[in-house]
Amino acid sequence: MTITITAIDAPDQPDRTPELDALYRGFESELLVPLWTEIGELMPMQPTSKAQPHTWRWDTLLPLAQRAGDLVPVGRGGERRAIALANPGLGGAPYATPTLWAAIQYLAPRENAPERRHTQNAFRFVVEGEGVWTVVDGDPVAMRRGDFLLTPGWQFHGHHNVSDAPMAWIDGLDILFVHNTDSAFFEFGPEGVSDQRTPARSRAERLWAHPGLRPVSSASAQAPSSPIAAYRWEHTDRALADQLALESEGHPGVVEPGHAAVRFTNPTTGGDVMPTIRAEFHRLRAGADTAARREVGSSVFQVFEGSGQVRVGDHVWTVGHGDLFVVPSWQPLTLATDAGLDLFRFSDTPIFERLHQSRALVEPNNYVEGTPQ
Amino acid sequence: MTITITAIDAPDQPDRTPELDALYRGFESELLVPLWTEIGELMPMQPTSKAQPHTWRWDTLLPLAQRAGDLVPVGRGGERRAIALANPGLGGAPYATPTLWAAIQYLAPRENAPERRHTQNAFRFVVEGEGVWTVVDGDPVAMRRGDFLLTPGWQFHGHHNVSDAPMAWIDGLDILFVHNTDSAFFEFGPEGVSDQRTPARSRAERLWAHPGLRPVSSASAQAPSSPIAAYRWEHTDRALADQLALESEGHPGVVEPGHAAVRFTNPTTGGDVMPTIRAEFHRLRAGADTAARREVGSSVFQVFEGSGQVRVGDHVWTVGHGDLFVVPSWQPLTLATDAGLDLFRFSDTPIFERLHQSRALVEPNNYVEGTPQ
Amino acid sequence: MTITITAIDAPDQPDRTPELDALYRGFESELLVPLWTEIGELMPMQPTSKAQPHTWRWDTLLPLAQRAGDLVPVGRGGERRAIALANPGLGGAPYATPTLWAAIQYLAPRENAPERRHTQNAFRFVVEGEGVWTVVDGDPVAMRRGDFLLTPGWQFHGHHNVSDAPMAWIDGLDILFVHNTDSAFFEFGPEGVSDQRTPARSRAERLWAHPGLRPVSSASAQAPSSPIAAYRWEHTDRALADQLALESEGHPGVVEPGHAAVRFTNPTTGGDVMPTIRAEFHRLRAGADTAARREVGSSVFQVFEGSGQVRVGDHVWTVGHGDLFVVPSWQPLTLATDAGLDLFRFSDTPIFERLHQSRALVEPNNYVEGTPQ
Amino acid sequence: MTITITAIDAPDQPDRTPELDALYRGFESELLVPLWTEIGELMPMQPTSKAQPHTWRWDTLLPLAQRAGDLVPVGRGGERRAIALANPGLGGAPYATPTLWAAIQYLAPRENAPERRHTQNAFRFVVEGEGVWTVVDGDPVAMRRGDFLLTPGWQFHGHHNVSDAPMAWIDGLDILFVHNTDSAFFEFGPEGVSDQRTPARSRAERLWAHPGLRPVSSASAQAPSSPIAAYRWEHTDRALADQLALESEGHPGVVEPGHAAVRFTNPTTGGDVMPTIRAEFHRLRAGADTAARREVGSSVFQVFEGSGQVRVGDHVWTVGHGDLFVVPSWQPLTLATDAGLDLFRFSDTPIFERLHQSRALVEPNNYVEGTPQ
Repeated sequence: MTITITAIDAPDQPDRTPELDALYRGFESELLVPLWTEIGELMPMQPTSKAQPHTWRWDTLLPLAQRAGDLVPVGRGGERRAIALANPGLGGAPYATPTLWAAIQYLAPRENAPERRHTQNAFRFVVEGEGVWTVVDGDPVAMRRGDFLLTPGWQFHGHHNVSDAPMAWIDGLDILFVHNTDSAFFEFGPEGVSDQRTPARSRAERLWAHPGLRPVSSASAQAPSSPIAAYRWEHTDRALADQLALESEGHPGVVEPGHAAVRFTNPTTGGDVMPTIRAEFHRLRAGADTAARREVGSSVFQVFEGSGQVRVGDHVWTVGHGDLFVVPSWQPLTLATDAGLDLFRFSDTPIFERLHQSRALVEPNNYVEGTPQ
Repeated sequence: MTITITAIDAPDQPDRTPELDALYRGFESELLVPLWTEIGELMPMQPTSKAQPHTWRWDTLLPLAQRAGDLVPVGRGGERRAIALANPGLGGAPYATPTLWAAIQYLAPRENAPERRHTQNAFRFVVEGEGVWTVVDGDPVAMRRGDFLLTPGWQFHGHHNVSDAPMAWIDGLDILFVHNTDSAFFEFGPEGVSDQRTPARSRAERLWAHPGLRPVSSASAQAPSSPIAAYRWEHTDRALADQLALESEGHPGVVEPGHAAVRFTNPTTGGDVMPTIRAEFHRLRAGADTAARREVGSSVFQVFEGSGQVRVGDHVWTVGHGDLFVVPSWQPLTLATDAGLDLFRFSDTPIFERLHQSRALVEPNNYVEGTPQ
Repeated sequence: MTITITAIDAPDQPDRTPELDALYRGFESELLVPLWTEIGELMPMQPTSKAQPHTWRWDTLLPLAQRAGDLVPVGRGGERRAIALANPGLGGAPYATPTLWAAIQYLAPRENAPERRHTQNAFRFVVEGEGVWTVVDGDPVAMRRGDFLLTPGWQFHGHHNVSDAPMAWIDGLDILFVHNTDSAFFEFGPEGVSDQRTPARSRAERLWAHPGLRPVSSASAQAPSSPIAAYRWEHTDRALADQLALESEGHPGVVEPGHAAVRFTNPTTGGDVMPTIRAEFHRLRAGADTAARREVGSSVFQVFEGSGQVRVGDHVWTVGHGDLFVVPSWQPLTLATDAGLDLFRFSDTPIFERLHQSRALVEPNNYVEGTPQ
Repeated sequence: MTITITAIDAPDQPDRTPELDALYRGFESELLVPLWTEIGELMPMQPTSKAQPHTWRWDTLLPLAQRAGDLVPVGRGGERRAIALANPGLGGAPYATPTLWAAIQYLAPRENAPERRHTQNAFRFVVEGEGVWTVVDGDPVAMRRGDFLLTPGWQFHGHHNVSDAPMAWIDGLDILFVHNTDSAFFEFGPEGVSDQRTPARSRAERLWAHPGLRPVSSASAQAPSSPIAAYRWEHTDRALADQLALESEGHPGVVEPGHAAVRFTNPTTGGDVMPTIRAEFHRLRAGADTAARREVGSSVFQVFEGSGQVRVGDHVWTVGHGDLFVVPSWQPLTLATDAGLDLFRFSDTPIFERLHQSRALVEPNNYVEGTPQ
């Protein structure tokens, strides 16, 4: 390794002298770096993420995935046909944010993605389509439009497409966080998927997806991750509709006027679905806009239905069905919609809440100026 | 107050002498009691409850409640037309167990029970009927067959019958526990009920009774009691049916062969619905019987559907629709059924779990002999 | 059992008629009690404890204990020479409050109290004397003036006096709470004490009584009760002196002016020493008095040093070394002292905090009138 | 940003074709990266840290720090005269491990380091010397040999040397973790230190550093970080000596034969001192060696007294007073000593425990071969 320490010509630095140079060469040879030559970046006044606000368009993403379906086989080496969003601030690495991986995964008709497990926490969100079952620790889980599906860390999982149509969906994982903290383990499972059945409801749902109920047979355990393998669109949709109806009747429930939101939770704790990942669904009523909100931590959103304007820091976009966008840490986010907007969101917020580094700041909406790109 | 200490004639006691008598009179005048004259009861080898196993028959209870409906008006002094089970071991006091109150409450057509609140935790379970709305902190909650409904401590609540038929249900509270620990507070609310509307779903359910979802507007709070005002029979029934179906398919989920059970939970914690009360629903498949189970703490059961044999210690009963029975602390309970059996259960178990006094012992089922009473 | 339900002649009761009498006889025969005949006591507006404020004088207690030492042998049947405070409101039963047992225990020179264990949580507080070792799960723990010593539930414990002088101390337990909830288990241990050694510091202290440090060998566990067998007077005294010195220097730390207080804690959780019992030490500077404080739950205090005036509800006493007094639930307590006052206190507060029944109310000190009894 | 995706010539990759190249160019232009071209590094079979095992020698570090004291003034721009360990695997960046910063800080006689605060959690460990007070949220805290001192996130802190001798110590922070997750906030405080006093004990210690005791005035709060500003050597030393003495007497307490260890804890929770940093002190008896231990997460050790052999993966060193070494994630660590060895250790373990990513593996000691470097 080579360290190069440069005497910096600045008012708050010592004058450059032969003695200082000798000291710096001594530091270099001993693998030492003086704090006073590291200006600014090490301990900034507030989060200044390298990640940039960015949007990826579904009508660009999906054809590329389909083309990959034609050209690239799946299953070699335990891999998936997953194509990751590479944040323009992160040097070409396949990461959406400094902690999170987001990718479009594509499975051709009758294809399998073999089983494996890893300590990274993973989920799928289905913006359209159906026909694939993901098998999680031996339990086949149907994937359908609007569903949010879990593969918590260290659970075996594979996918198989039982239909004659291809299917694409979004994968989210904490890969970069786990990578940066050196906590990754991985194991291969069987080549195929361990259970070929295609039930409408998974065993996990039959045990756990009943409101306010849990099986007495595992009633005392607090599981690190949610045992609900699939959060179905019919429930999410109804909960959001209920919030907006309550607002119309004059009762509390929405986050702010015209803005309903639900969080996916672990029914054994009431907390987030997985230790590092928060997932939510947001619905804006036609005509609504939101306050500007800053949070420690980064988020990825995908538009499910409708369209709207998104402002993240200085970036402004008009977004529609399937479009994805990234909100880096502490960048203010504002949403607005004329036609109504349904948004899936995931973020790394649980990391900060559990480590007492969480902060949020809600400011009056200053969304006006700015031309959609 | 008078204390009388008697010299006891037993091998492990000091001989009676004038000096000892003088000492005992000294203790008495100073309000002191020597440990060595208190034989046994103070610190027994295992729980020996004064409460007795007992059963109350629905076909006796209900006519008495109906007769009270004819003769006794409701609402005077903020009271209810509630008739409490008095455990035969508790000296005629209106308590089902050493901690729990259980009563049948009866509301005549078009009657109101005015609002009030108290620190005692309360719930209702509806074994049959409908037509009453309970209004909990201003939120009208329909009461229907099979539903389990909450009134956690210090929430205002009243009931009103909007139908032309009477309705009866079961109330459960932690009255004796709160009484024995001197922690009761009470306040009267308005004379009538504060919201006369009769929606099919309460606002609480619309916000909270979606599987694995919680509103982002109150997403961080851990509430001491469940915000779900009503646990509907359709969900309970489906969860129980799912467990038995999973068993038939060879998958885990039931408590033991032929025995499905769900616990009602607080979705903000995954724990019990209220700090002092556990509530569960049990379903035994036709032909099933259970292991003998002892637990620290007491339970009250009500048969919802079906019939079966219950053994509690030395007591054996055949029970059917609406019958209630009590299981005192550490008494072994065994259930068996030819026709299938659906049972609602509540208990004081959370007290012991939170105070680290919980114990349970499961023994092989020795249910054979014994003639039903 | 006999139940007698009496028709009550009051404005809010139904008129007495033959039909009503017949109904009441029906209730009686079926072991039922109507709520409307139970006036008031069941659900009071605020806690109205049967327990009364009361004080016991050390110069009366100690001679009676000494006299018992002459007349009553210890060790028969696993019992102790313990003489319990019987609250005048509790009908002569050996309980200081509706949950707590408090007793003076007396061990003659060279006497042993054999080992046993029980689920009741216990502690000792030493107002004077030394020479006894209590052996807790095989670990001999010296008992000395000012020390607070633990015997959490289900730990074997015995005592042996290795000196030529008798020794007396105070025992506190949650006996009545455990009794009322039917959660008691008990086992006899060896006749003598299992370790006759008399080290100055117990093994528990050597592992755990270091400020802010825990052994890595058991670093992850959260124990229900504190592993610190003995809280030594030198640490308690120093912590109280530090608080008053900080106050003199203008820094926060005391509870209120002139009133220092420390809580004994479980170092594995930061919470109370045992699941049902809180223990604290309070020091009032000469000339100090306290605000009137009401709390849900009951307390027992013992004066360690100094003297002062105590007001509990309508009762006012002057107390000095060794005197004990009881504060029932929700009774306002005020303390005042001319000469300075050191007080040990224990209470059942953890029960209410863990079950979300805790309340407190601090009111301006209205201690003036009232003549000490 | 430029992304370059290279078709890889490997058995499990699609054949390179013009169509594939066109697809890859499409990915690049849309900021997308296919998973199948990222071989291996993304999701390894077990943690394969870029950080390397490495040691820094005190007798090299200290003279360089002293020389910096001669040439570089402190206090300009709120900085410190801190010289960071740069792990040879981390590209010359000033980080000891992928999450942790470790530096030697040096303060000349009568020098001040001005106050500031940041969300990064920080501590100091003093391997030798005295004379500096660190002022934490206005509370002056003496720094002395063997002491471990806390500056939890967002507490103002500055240092001043009141003596005529320089002083050097070790700083530890979670800078890289906070940097990688974009959660850093920073504020400058006053130029000097806010309290020039030099008490032997800080106010924090006077309130909190009493074994098993906490002030009633803040008795209920669970603080995210420990309120004990300083863990004094006399307590650490005594706790370690007690463990080894207990082992000699045949009692449990040590981690393994001849190996005592204590963890510094937060007395309000019993958990780690700060949300992201664990700190421990280890003592090996003369002649002891340890099992090989792997853990998820990285550690930095500093030798306090004695000498010994350290093996980390393939690296073997002989270490003595003041030497520092780094153990990357999942690298096996073995320690051995002829003369006895006292070691301070800090690590990022709480991150993994709180996020359910923690793993450890203890293997038989295979420390034999290998020549110390």
